[in-house]
Amino acid sequence: MSSADELARKIADHMRAREGTGAAWNIEIEEAREGYARIAMIVRKDMLNGHHICHGGMIFSLSDTAFAYACNSRNMETVAQNATIAFLAPGREGDRLVAECQEQALTGRSGVYAVTVTNQKGEKIAVFQGLSRSLGNPVLKTD
Amino acid sequence: MSSADELARKIADHMRAREGTGAAWNIEIEEAREGYARIAMIVRKDMLNGHHICHGGMIFSLSDTAFAYACNSRNMETVAQNATIAFLAPGREGDRLVAECQEQALTGRSGVYAVTVTNQKGEKIAVFQGLSRSLGNPVLKTD
Amino acid sequence: MSSADELARKIADHMRAREGTGAAWNIEIEEAREGYARIAMIVRKDMLNGHHICHGGMIFSLSDTAFAYACNSRNMETVAQNATIAFLAPGREGDRLVAECQEQALTGRSGVYAVTVTNQKGEKIAVFQGLSRSLGNPVLKTD
Amino acid sequence: MSSADELARKIADHMRAREGTGAAWNIEIEEAREGYARIAMIVRKDMLNGHHICHGGMIFSLSDTAFAYACNSRNMETVAQNATIAFLAPGREGDRLVAECQEQALTGRSGVYAVTVTNQKGEKIAVFQGLSRSLGNPVLKTD
Repeated sequence: MSSADELARKIADHMRAREGTGAAWNIEIEEAREGYARIAMIVRKDMLNGHHICHGGMIFSLSDTAFAYACNSRNMETVAQNATIAFLAPGREGDRLVAECQEQALTGRSGVYAVTVTNQKGEKIAVFQGLSRSLGNPVLKTD
Repeated sequence: MSSADELARKIADHMRAREGTGAAWNIEIEEAREGYARIAMIVRKDMLNGHHICHGGMIFSLSDTAFAYACNSRNMETVAQNATIAFLAPGREGDRLVAECQEQALTGRSGVYAVTVTNQKGEKIAVFQGLSRSLGNPVLKTD
Repeated sequence: MSSADELARKIADHMRAREGTGAAWNIEIEEAREGYARIAMIVRKDMLNGHHICHGGMIFSLSDTAFAYACNSRNMETVAQNATIAFLAPGREGDRLVAECQEQALTGRSGVYAVTVTNQKGEKIAVFQGLSRSLGNPVLKTD
Repeated sequence: MSSADELARKIADHMRAREGTGAAWNIEIEEAREGYARIAMIVRKDMLNGHHICHGGMIFSLSDTAFAYACNSRNMETVAQNATIAFLAPGREGDRLVAECQEQALTGRSGVYAVTVTNQKGEKIAVFQGLSRSLGNPVLKTD
């Protein structure tokens, strides 16, 4: 593993530990590398909408969390400016949803990331595109 | 109040009562009319991200909930197909965020809705656009 | 008419005159005010796609042009960062499409604009949301 | 080359020949396979905006054309429902822009496609995500 990838994993773990949502949603980091993150979440009753399927907000939240880990992975504090999500299939109570985020482009302070959300059967649940902007500060002090 | 608006309010209340997220996020319905919903949520510690501001996923979730109430308001079961959000300013712990959703267009089974999220000082936090598709079943039996 | 609105109109006319696309697409400015623009375009044969309806790219281009006039209207050079469009109904050859753009939010350097595209029968063809970023230079010298 | 890929190329060529925009924009098909298309366009003076860079509408139009070829590639007539584009760097007069479209997901009638636009130096100009819906008719009669 390269040191860039080790740093990316350290940053994802640091963010996961600091964020209130990481514990609230029980986010599990499967892998985090430079410009990449793959995370998982189990759909619980308190994540269901009025039709008793996973609330679109939670599918977005999972995607957005993977996006945050990936776009901060170079140790530059980076925020989301815009995000789009297409919903393809429902998530069900008990489903284990995996969000995989890959960097599509990084140009100056702007980055674009694609996230795919898949359930335990390999069915695509949603596809997400996020536009990030880096603020220029480090996330972690690395000296 | 028209009977269409009364029905819209009944549907929003029904969805709020049935959804796990309504209680989990403590969603308050301020107003619900045909093609319109305005709802509020207080930002809690368990909604904060690693930078200690409101997680973008929760701002989206609030917007998406207002969208769901508005696009189901004609008593046709309707789901989100796509949604986009632009993030403009951070939400802070304790902020009361209000999401106001208005119908922009309704053509056959497809609808477009715009949501603006504002904090208690009137600052715009985010703007959202959602594309819905109705499935053709009633949400509530009204006979 | 306020002087802010007069300046906005002058800027839109200036942009329309300078851009290659303004003549290529025969863009007509119906109204331009601070944070607002309404423009029109006739759908021609060379704007049709393989299904012989107006190419989505041209519906986007019309929307994006209205967005450009509106977001530059305060005489700050401003560019699009992200845009989303939902397509609701086809445009036909000979249709006169009108794109109306309204500012939804302006926070620091970022703005959000909504555009609705309508045909001559008042049918909604598309709805667009654009996120802009101002670069800080004037569009017109005004002294 | 598989027969599915041969059919995809035939469909792209057919669409290119029928569409008014194909000739108007001088679209060149570099490759078309099942769920994939890569096409090119040279930025001309009549594609420039008021800042004398390529109009965002034309960058979208190129992306949307690649998307159309890819999502119709299985010989099911398919239309765009929603599309999002992030703009990363300007296109200049004379640039040769290449749009590469890949299928991300296909679930029932809905598909999601990602397009990356790159210039002749390999710089990323824009990233696009499109949501399609198939209408159920063939594009080409294949018997």
